[in-house]
Amino acid sequence: MRRRSGNFWDGVEGRAPKPRAAATLGWEFVDADVEEGTIEVSFAATESFTNPMGEVLGGFLAAMLYDTVGPALLATLEPGQFISTMELKASFLRPVSPGRVVGSGRVAHRNGDIAFLDGFLSDLDGATLATATATARVINMDPSIRQRSTKEGRRRDG
Amino acid sequence: MRRRSGNFWDGVEGRAPKPRAAATLGWEFVDADVEEGTIEVSFAATESFTNPMGEVLGGFLAAMLYDTVGPALLATLEPGQFISTMELKASFLRPVSPGRVVGSGRVAHRNGDIAFLDGFLSDLDGATLATATATARVINMDPSIRQRSTKEGRRRDG
Repeated sequence: MRRRSGNFWDGVEGRAPKPRAAATLGWEFVDADVEEGTIEVSFAATESFTNPMGEVLGGFLAAMLYDTVGPALLATLEPGQFISTMELKASFLRPVSPGRVVGSGRVAHRNGDIAFLDGFLSDLDGATLATATATARVINMDPSIRQRSTKEGRRRDG
Repeated sequence: MRRRSGNFWDGVEGRAPKPRAAATLGWEFVDADVEEGTIEVSFAATESFTNPMGEVLGGFLAAMLYDTVGPALLATLEPGQFISTMELKASFLRPVSPGRVVGSGRVAHRNGDIAFLDGFLSDLDGATLATATATARVINMDPSIRQRSTKEGRRRDG
């Protein structure tokens, strides 16, 4: 595994506070393979996310999917880079009760600044609860990084 | 406007508690046209929804879009009916700061149990922040309603 630096890893490894949205979702880092562009995270779905049936509202599952596939890309970035997720498509397969939800995310393909992401949520028995695809753009906060990335012709295939 | 009965209107009009997920999103009913299948709602995006940039995480915008397009359909249902949203596709157009977000939802087309929904979020200046389409299925909790609906050949076009 490569070095773990940059904004994302600062948050995961306690050098920066966890993002507020991540804390609200009960987001926890589990594991990542930066070379493969894969990540596993988990969420704590609480009663505050439920619909009148007592199930987790699909909207909160979409939020969890967003915060699964985004981190798959974030984990691969250089310091000073951030991402803008442009779109997310989520499919809701099964009803979800409050409790722990596992998120598995992947950078399916990267072409320059554009990354195609996918992922899914599962319960502790391994049943798939919801799936998503997303498209994101890598943003360089520091212009010097943009030049370096362009010169390196950074590209992933998967 | 037709009568306002059923689970959704019970929540809106205070005869039943607001769903937990809706309360978490600061969801408020603004207006609806049940004949047209349109609805306007609003959300209170708090600091607890933000990413490290201080913007509302797109995942929470997806949750708001989900809780905009679903209610457009919910508002049109008979008592004893509920919905299952099967998929949601969201596009994130602009960064969103914490504050009030307006959600506009619509039943674009209904064919029997299946409804095609769309909607968008906007700020108080009317700028579109994010858009979504979704596909949902109407569920009859009471079998006698299913028979009635089938006989009536309930169908909407838009």
